[in-house]
Amino acid sequence: MFITFEGIEGCGKTTQIALLAEWLTTRTGQAPVLTREPGGCPIANQVRGILLDSANHAMTGRTELFLYAAARAQHVAEVIRPALEAGKIVLCDRYSDATIAYQGYGRGLPLSMIMELDTLATEGTIPDLTLLLDFAPQTGLERACQRNAAAKGPDEGRFEQEALTFHQRVRDGYLCLAKENPRFCIVDATGTKEVVAERIRTAVARHLDMRVP
Amino acid sequence: MFITFEGIEGCGKTTQIALLAEWLTTRTGQAPVLTREPGGCPIANQVRGILLDSANHAMTGRTELFLYAAARAQHVAEVIRPALEAGKIVLCDRYSDATIAYQGYGRGLPLSMIMELDTLATEGTIPDLTLLLDFAPQTGLERACQRNAAAKGPDEGRFEQEALTFHQRVRDGYLCLAKENPRFCIVDATGTKEVVAERIRTAVARHLDMRVP
Repeated sequence: MFITFEGIEGCGKTTQIALLAEWLTTRTGQAPVLTREPGGCPIANQVRGILLDSANHAMTGRTELFLYAAARAQHVAEVIRPALEAGKIVLCDRYSDATIAYQGYGRGLPLSMIMELDTLATEGTIPDLTLLLDFAPQTGLERACQRNAAAKGPDEGRFEQEALTFHQRVRDGYLCLAKENPRFCIVDATGTKEVVAERIRTAVARHLDMRVP
Repeated sequence: MFITFEGIEGCGKTTQIALLAEWLTTRTGQAPVLTREPGGCPIANQVRGILLDSANHAMTGRTELFLYAAARAQHVAEVIRPALEAGKIVLCDRYSDATIAYQGYGRGLPLSMIMELDTLATEGTIPDLTLLLDFAPQTGLERACQRNAAAKGPDEGRFEQEALTFHQRVRDGYLCLAKENPRFCIVDATGTKEVVAERIRTAVARHLDMRVP
């Protein structure tokens, strides 16, 4: 079972993935594989470094798209597909939908080109369930900026520097994708982390065909 | 005018590009733009670092292909197209044909997929003249290994580690491309560097419609 987490900056994905992993470990007796994009394996992490470096402001939209595809191709082949084939649950922080939302709806690159590249990168490995943590961009950005200023230093902030309107387009893109794809579950990401975690558990339990405690 | 240099490892491209640049500067009164792939600008050089690092032996063929496309998209947008638009002569060490020869004929990835990605990366920026420095793979590899051992340390040797049969397939691929594309000029790369340089000058002069001295 392949579950992806999507949402704009600061929606709380990282925290929620960790909470869901704990819960799944208790419920199924087996720890899920936690991974993230861009990254998830050494080669893809090197690509991540290029993508998120705020010094790379001259990067064109196409370059960015090819780099995401490169990182994803490696990540799927080396981590995701082997784990799924071994019967594990994989929880991934961002995947193909993020590229469509950010590069397509956000930057305006043609959706058909993005989807074509993505099909080549994933070779048909599609999530069973995509949890979209939905949230107003203004609040999300404030959270992300505070977190980066506090913990990460100046290097990984390229996307947070984008204008609010960009993030609004990304959110709208995610909502369009959710409407078109039944594998999506829109989770209201406002409220305490415990409240959001409970919403996520309900969605996942329904999918796992297990009863919520 | 956009001139690319192609050929298997150790064919003498780097030396010959420098010699041609000197000659063109004298003949035209203007220094050409010298560049190379993968690389040619800061972001593409970061991608080059990932591609040529021999520690990255787990890299899949598709990942490699996307990384080449990423580096090329940036290089074309930032260096090649602006120089051509400014009326300069651009000399580039490897370009699209290298991807077709190495990833297609060498690694066996589908040529149609490579060409499709390449069209997206270059957005139609195609060389006016491609000089294929042709050479038996055995001799070329010996030269490349000697040069790397002497000058570059162990980090950039990933391709030289490939089997001789791989390089034979690459050479055959280049020769196929040359047969199909009239922009190719096959240059015999055996003999002293002065002899090869003279062959190249003859080809370029014919193309520039200038008389050879």
